[in-house]
Amino acid sequence: MSVAAEARIAPLAVSLGDPSGIGPELIAEAWVQRTRARVPPFVAIGGVRLIASAAASRGIEVPIEPVASLAEAGAVFGRALPVLGDLDAPFRPGEPNAEGAALAFSSLQTATDLAVRGEASALVTGPIAKALLAAVGFHHPGQTEFVAQACGVTAQDAVMMLAGPQLRTIPLTVHVALARVPGLLSVDLIRRRARIAAAALTRDFGIVRPRMAIAALNPHAGESGKFGDEEVRIIAPAVEALRAEGIDATGPHPADALFAPHERRSYDAALCMYHDQALIPLKALDFDSGVNVTLGLPIVRTSPDHGTAFAIAGTGRANAGATIAALRMAGECAARRAAHG
Amino acid sequence: MSVAAEARIAPLAVSLGDPSGIGPELIAEAWVQRTRARVPPFVAIGGVRLIASAAASRGIEVPIEPVASLAEAGAVFGRALPVLGDLDAPFRPGEPNAEGAALAFSSLQTATDLAVRGEASALVTGPIAKALLAAVGFHHPGQTEFVAQACGVTAQDAVMMLAGPQLRTIPLTVHVALARVPGLLSVDLIRRRARIAAAALTRDFGIVRPRMAIAALNPHAGESGKFGDEEVRIIAPAVEALRAEGIDATGPHPADALFAPHERRSYDAALCMYHDQALIPLKALDFDSGVNVTLGLPIVRTSPDHGTAFAIAGTGRANAGATIAALRMAGECAARRAAHG
Repeated sequence: MSVAAEARIAPLAVSLGDPSGIGPELIAEAWVQRTRARVPPFVAIGGVRLIASAAASRGIEVPIEPVASLAEAGAVFGRALPVLGDLDAPFRPGEPNAEGAALAFSSLQTATDLAVRGEASALVTGPIAKALLAAVGFHHPGQTEFVAQACGVTAQDAVMMLAGPQLRTIPLTVHVALARVPGLLSVDLIRRRARIAAAALTRDFGIVRPRMAIAALNPHAGESGKFGDEEVRIIAPAVEALRAEGIDATGPHPADALFAPHERRSYDAALCMYHDQALIPLKALDFDSGVNVTLGLPIVRTSPDHGTAFAIAGTGRANAGATIAALRMAGECAARRAAHG
Repeated sequence: MSVAAEARIAPLAVSLGDPSGIGPELIAEAWVQRTRARVPPFVAIGGVRLIASAAASRGIEVPIEPVASLAEAGAVFGRALPVLGDLDAPFRPGEPNAEGAALAFSSLQTATDLAVRGEASALVTGPIAKALLAAVGFHHPGQTEFVAQACGVTAQDAVMMLAGPQLRTIPLTVHVALARVPGLLSVDLIRRRARIAAAALTRDFGIVRPRMAIAALNPHAGESGKFGDEEVRIIAPAVEALRAEGIDATGPHPADALFAPHERRSYDAALCMYHDQALIPLKALDFDSGVNVTLGLPIVRTSPDHGTAFAIAGTGRANAGATIAALRMAGECAARRAAHG
């Protein structure tokens, strides 16, 4: 994306994530690297003091300016990290608590609102601790479901994609026992998610005719039903149906070969049957730059593909690669939407 | 391993694999690269004419000498590719047939015998086509089970390990439907395989106290039983029991993070619950140099971790990296056994 295209979009709204985690310090680090890493303008939601403390704990100097609007944030971004809102809590890296969880929730709500109202060009969410959030009134399995609801989209149609420099994967099932996975697969589920993903790859990633590789569930794709028949009963018919409706789907592909270097060049995204099938290759290859993108929403939403990492918060050891990648990807997607309506 | 150590071991016995596949041409290629790639002396079992034809199809010139013994093979190896036995069949790359399958079986039998009798220092097997072999009297799920039987070891105790430059993985279950995997896991299975693997990593790989990472089955290791209880019921107790018997086992580790770059440095081998969990990261990272090693046998046995690749046999496109890696690993393991008894 050109700088000109970036310049046309409004700043991204960035939620802090849990203030005891690595979210705030990585926001500060991303601002420091903004020019070299081509980070588009963004505004952090809430927590001037928190971000300043987190930056200090990391040993980086970051000028911070409170702003009252997205327009002001855009004007400020070149010289200081703009922060909107006056959320505050003590800075206690590695010691999550209810006060911090409430702040994280509030930051997420405001950032989401700004994106849904179209004031921010995209939403980038910092990592949260779900267990603590439940105690302060957050009743969603994760941020993705919260954002989907705020957008009026059912959680089933908010499609999670993991994207790194070498690979994009889409897990069809996520936080369920592996034993339950085979029973959750269906032709309809595969078709629906592949369709949403293909449309989003065109709209947000500029891929005119996305090549969708559909992974097998069983080893060697079951060898024609010899060990496991989900390929024969479910996955192959779904691929056929997708092709019939004009989507460039292939598979079922044996999953072990699908992520090998030469195979990775043959598709734009791999639709995976379960969490680890999608996450193992992504984290093996692109650990410090993995982005979690939610496809199928009226807004652009990304997040770094890592957790709160309480154990290293405040030590300066957290890698900002995924946060920077999430910000850049959000900016690029937003610019494409702005350019093409 | 030093050249001196290599010089002390007898040649490796190498079976051709299916003669219509990429096995024979890669044996020739490995000989051509012997000096640069530090390939230890080996002898190909059977097929002077086949190997010559395969080399020619690849456009490489390889002097070939028939030999009558392993000692002669060792003397010849510097100037020519030694071949033992007079197996022959027409060279038909990409067109597997019963005659070729019979030749592959015969080559495997002779090579295995030479290793079991201790004449060859190790066995390296070329890729076969199992379906065709069944028609010529080969009644084993794969070469590993055949070799185990020839060694008097039960197939359950012949432990498959995949090894590449960046990673070693051991799949606990292999060619079974994913739905059956949870039911096949047990504390005993994990303990037994981990014990065999740890002993072999010491004996054959020179790792004094192998660090064994035991993977979880469910995403996020089930989050304390929230989605899947195999970690709580089976894997954690197995890890505890292994530690109690003095093995440096850790886990259950969430599988998505286990193969990330910084995690890979924290263990010597990862014990995986199913085929794709072990093979996805290996092939994503080390596709052209993955070696399949059988641990727990009285002989050293390796093979390149790829199939017959009929589609590219005879085109010169097959990569010899895995064959060379399998030969080198076999030589290194054999030298360690020779040095330490």
